[in-house]
Amino acid sequence: MIRAGIVGATGYTGVELLRLLLAHPRVEPAVITSRGNAGEPLESLFPNLRGQGALVFQAPDADALGDCDVVFFATPHGVAHAMAGDLLARGTRVIDLSADFRIKDPHLWSRWYGQPHGAPELLDEAVYGLPEIHRARITQARLIAVPGCYPTAVTLGFLPLLEQGVVDPARLVADAKSGVSGAGRKAQVGSLLCEASENFKAYAVPGHRHLPEILQTLSAVAGQSPGLTFVPHLVPMIRGILASLYATLTHADTDLQALYEARYAGEPFVDVLPAGGHPETRSVRGTNLCRLAVHRPGGGDTVVVLSAIDNLVKGASGQAVQNMNLMFGLPETLGLESIAVLP
Amino acid sequence: MIRAGIVGATGYTGVELLRLLLAHPRVEPAVITSRGNAGEPLESLFPNLRGQGALVFQAPDADALGDCDVVFFATPHGVAHAMAGDLLARGTRVIDLSADFRIKDPHLWSRWYGQPHGAPELLDEAVYGLPEIHRARITQARLIAVPGCYPTAVTLGFLPLLEQGVVDPARLVADAKSGVSGAGRKAQVGSLLCEASENFKAYAVPGHRHLPEILQTLSAVAGQSPGLTFVPHLVPMIRGILASLYATLTHADTDLQALYEARYAGEPFVDVLPAGGHPETRSVRGTNLCRLAVHRPGGGDTVVVLSAIDNLVKGASGQAVQNMNLMFGLPETLGLESIAVLP
Amino acid sequence: MIRAGIVGATGYTGVELLRLLLAHPRVEPAVITSRGNAGEPLESLFPNLRGQGALVFQAPDADALGDCDVVFFATPHGVAHAMAGDLLARGTRVIDLSADFRIKDPHLWSRWYGQPHGAPELLDEAVYGLPEIHRARITQARLIAVPGCYPTAVTLGFLPLLEQGVVDPARLVADAKSGVSGAGRKAQVGSLLCEASENFKAYAVPGHRHLPEILQTLSAVAGQSPGLTFVPHLVPMIRGILASLYATLTHADTDLQALYEARYAGEPFVDVLPAGGHPETRSVRGTNLCRLAVHRPGGGDTVVVLSAIDNLVKGASGQAVQNMNLMFGLPETLGLESIAVLP
Amino acid sequence: MIRAGIVGATGYTGVELLRLLLAHPRVEPAVITSRGNAGEPLESLFPNLRGQGALVFQAPDADALGDCDVVFFATPHGVAHAMAGDLLARGTRVIDLSADFRIKDPHLWSRWYGQPHGAPELLDEAVYGLPEIHRARITQARLIAVPGCYPTAVTLGFLPLLEQGVVDPARLVADAKSGVSGAGRKAQVGSLLCEASENFKAYAVPGHRHLPEILQTLSAVAGQSPGLTFVPHLVPMIRGILASLYATLTHADTDLQALYEARYAGEPFVDVLPAGGHPETRSVRGTNLCRLAVHRPGGGDTVVVLSAIDNLVKGASGQAVQNMNLMFGLPETLGLESIAVLP
Repeated sequence: MIRAGIVGATGYTGVELLRLLLAHPRVEPAVITSRGNAGEPLESLFPNLRGQGALVFQAPDADALGDCDVVFFATPHGVAHAMAGDLLARGTRVIDLSADFRIKDPHLWSRWYGQPHGAPELLDEAVYGLPEIHRARITQARLIAVPGCYPTAVTLGFLPLLEQGVVDPARLVADAKSGVSGAGRKAQVGSLLCEASENFKAYAVPGHRHLPEILQTLSAVAGQSPGLTFVPHLVPMIRGILASLYATLTHADTDLQALYEARYAGEPFVDVLPAGGHPETRSVRGTNLCRLAVHRPGGGDTVVVLSAIDNLVKGASGQAVQNMNLMFGLPETLGLESIAVLP
Repeated sequence: MIRAGIVGATGYTGVELLRLLLAHPRVEPAVITSRGNAGEPLESLFPNLRGQGALVFQAPDADALGDCDVVFFATPHGVAHAMAGDLLARGTRVIDLSADFRIKDPHLWSRWYGQPHGAPELLDEAVYGLPEIHRARITQARLIAVPGCYPTAVTLGFLPLLEQGVVDPARLVADAKSGVSGAGRKAQVGSLLCEASENFKAYAVPGHRHLPEILQTLSAVAGQSPGLTFVPHLVPMIRGILASLYATLTHADTDLQALYEARYAGEPFVDVLPAGGHPETRSVRGTNLCRLAVHRPGGGDTVVVLSAIDNLVKGASGQAVQNMNLMFGLPETLGLESIAVLP
Repeated sequence: MIRAGIVGATGYTGVELLRLLLAHPRVEPAVITSRGNAGEPLESLFPNLRGQGALVFQAPDADALGDCDVVFFATPHGVAHAMAGDLLARGTRVIDLSADFRIKDPHLWSRWYGQPHGAPELLDEAVYGLPEIHRARITQARLIAVPGCYPTAVTLGFLPLLEQGVVDPARLVADAKSGVSGAGRKAQVGSLLCEASENFKAYAVPGHRHLPEILQTLSAVAGQSPGLTFVPHLVPMIRGILASLYATLTHADTDLQALYEARYAGEPFVDVLPAGGHPETRSVRGTNLCRLAVHRPGGGDTVVVLSAIDNLVKGASGQAVQNMNLMFGLPETLGLESIAVLP
Repeated sequence: MIRAGIVGATGYTGVELLRLLLAHPRVEPAVITSRGNAGEPLESLFPNLRGQGALVFQAPDADALGDCDVVFFATPHGVAHAMAGDLLARGTRVIDLSADFRIKDPHLWSRWYGQPHGAPELLDEAVYGLPEIHRARITQARLIAVPGCYPTAVTLGFLPLLEQGVVDPARLVADAKSGVSGAGRKAQVGSLLCEASENFKAYAVPGHRHLPEILQTLSAVAGQSPGLTFVPHLVPMIRGILASLYATLTHADTDLQALYEARYAGEPFVDVLPAGGHPETRSVRGTNLCRLAVHRPGGGDTVVVLSAIDNLVKGASGQAVQNMNLMFGLPETLGLESIAVLP
């Protein structure tokens, strides 16, 4: 059994990671840490985990975590910076769900996150954990930066178009919509049911931290710096992201459906819908799937790609487990096969 | 008092119209018709209207309706075609909330609505009831085609840009999101709470009936046929539309904020938010307001306009009342001043 | 015009009070206070109030408030204790929406609210502002304790039964369900959309602060101390309370429907549904109505009363305005006539 | 592998059964029938099941179903009446999720369901599939009547009290609240998102079909006919039932917590919370658990029991699978171990 530790297991990515790892046939969640809830049992925070073993939150402890085979960080940014190096030195692999190692340029990171980068020496080693692009490197990695939720949905949606160079990379639009769990389990007015339900709005139109992360990946894929307008929205629901992506086709004879089906033919967690499809976020809820559809309305030169994920699974904890499976030589889908509960 | 009739008062635009007219100081709702619910009192369908007078649904009757000063159609398409001419001949003014008279070309209408146009002879006279464009003509009109919900939000959002010719009209994107009431009160699986809540999806990406309506108005404004990609989405909430609009700026020195504020300075129901704003649908719920914000993320050449309305008010029944006020020489805001209930 | 002040206008009862007072034809909201938001305009907290005048939050100031004809407290408990006496001395009437003056026994208050009573000398003068019981005294009052939300729904539901002595007062059950706005606008994890939506639970079964308040009123009505089991529940919606009340009929020949209709015949805000009815919270949303239905399932000796209110209106701010109307000799329904927005 | 057929697999209990059986290690869903959707693949109705094999709906066919080891009926009442006898004669076991065989008295059934009982000759053999009462008989059964959703929650809640005779059986109250999926996947106005969300109401207070079913079980347990007031409510959420149960304690010295813990000590799917607990429906969503808490507010003689289930799992399809496991000698929890997805 793989001994796993989770730092910061009290948020939504934390509980989702616990749900997945507790059901994983090859993993034993051994250590869960929380400064604020040390001493409390799992069920005090997460009533769904009652009866799932005797785990108790403990204060972060380098020795206890260092005894794990892998440690997940489900923490605000900055925490993994401070602890990852020590864990790697102890031979523990690190899978960081925070933003700490996603952006390769520490200055760029610093500008968007408002503090100095705490571990620039680890950036070269960190692998951006999107298996659909970096599977081979993930297999060898010691330190994984799990992609953000919006970046996962947006990148998987644009990827085939940019790899093949069939759209104008200078004029991309990503109109993305996320459930409220994307804002985490923090007590803040904007996430109250009375503020966020029966309401819809865009936010952070002037700039969102996921923009540079998306651009970094798309640049590498396109071989040039793309022009991307990224507008996130808040949907009155708990889980799910739908990204509606717009690009201008430069190669009019492209068979878009075939392109997407070919690109993702071997991918266990990317499902291209039949032509004309409209992926629904509920169809991927609780699963690690990304469901895609590609349209060309009216036969014009605008491509519309619809990309649906569960922000807490493929957008965070499920993708983290997928990375872990790859790092430890397990079947990539192990522990990630459950079917979405619907309705 | 203006005697008003409502044909098809059993749907959501019907009940909303009743709510507004019952509180209107100069209107008396005199006749409400419904084939299926003839003989039933208002409250049997709409418990919020209990105690608001003794109106009883009756079968549509040309004489009873012809005795009204104005008749509203809150019906599926085709019904107003059949009845409007007779009412106009009796001297009754007609405000049609359906799609029957929105599109000027009867062949185009026929193609999108799947049946022959039933009253092409009235198309010349019909005025598209968007006061922000056609106020003067509305004042003189006998027959009003109330704009659709998406067209209202999208058109008001693009209007200043296209009037001033500061964006490329060939490459417009309208990513629009609507609450479920936009689908009406019909019993259909897709509108069930268990299907539509805790879910988000796009629909009708290959083509939606509101597209030709939007294009007709934008063409007239821009003086040329624009290229528009229109993608509607279903939001798990009852009311509200947010349209996120994207265009490419061709005149880089445009002061967008000033442009929008100037365009809508005298408009009682269009509210341009201060720079950097993000309109929320709940802020206009139950009101006739359209709240707009205009952004230029990163100072680039993409303009992002956010346009929020209540689909049942400014997107339907409130706009109908606004038109009625103009047609009868009343203050334009009469009966439309209530404040959104929040939370 | 009546000059009104609101202390603590930043919560949900505050914004609702502002919505009602801004539309009230005889009131001018003159002063709104908030320690934390002093200097901010209304719309920064409540986007629905944008464009409704130039009110700005200011720090609480005795002189400014003392210049008002009436001051509303929409504050946590304890605040009105500290300020009410001074305002009354200045000739300002006080309408307290908090719990400070609801319970007549200061020791009992102290036990449930965990702090000493701060103004026991005012308790004699304070009138419990339930017009359906205390209308005459409210008319003469200088200091009103607006009833709690659950107490309003529960008391109006049991009232006819206990006044007439037709049920066993020793064995009452109130199973009450409230929307999340009952918990206020505080940033707390339990009120997050992700915690409270798609979920249902009871809470505070061992004891809730509204229990002694309900018992105090019912005791006075019944002429003896009743036995009441009160169980509140949290409903995944914003607004509304439905209380399902159970009692054992001791007078089998009682015509319950006639009893309720007679009791509330003259009440402008209590609506007894026809026999067999089921009041819906949405039918009273945003209104000051309490809708009641009374059942006797299977013709047995159990009475079931269903009582629906909007917790923020008849359960708080609307009832406060109703009290104000009575205190100032205005028509009781003034400013409270709007129709619920449905759907 | 157990070959399973599902008749009427197009509703919510049908899709839930498919989700559970597709993941069950010992079952092969072999035949799914639907008159209206014959020829359509699974995913056309249930996008969450896309990629889960090649099942196609077919018209009901006695031979195809008779080749199965077990056939589940997820149908409106009456269908199992017509088909069960033939299947049993072919040696196929039948698990009926409808109401057809729940009530032992065919005249009583007929009165509540408004049609003659179609298979009274099978009533003796049918076993009421509540394993917590009838486990031994279920193991030997050929025909199971899966309990209704409300009856499961209410019965498990009252069971220990009535078995031990510590409450007055003449005066029981069950105030039950259900998510909208309890109404099924039928297209009906009352289940629309726009009707059922942001609303709360009781329904069927004069009488609900689950009342005689509950009474039948409680009578057998109590050894006398109890007096039960049962009031169902509609909660604006998809899944979950919380039943709040009230009874009068006749044995004041009863240790209620110990009583419940002892009664359910060996039950894999009944979880008694620690004293003071409040079960949440989300904690059992998608699982076969019933979570219970027992309270005695203020130390009085009223017992309050809170009982939470997922209406589609322990209240329907999960309980059906639990019965199947028992009938086929499998571990009772097989295929039912997944953890609730939260948030």
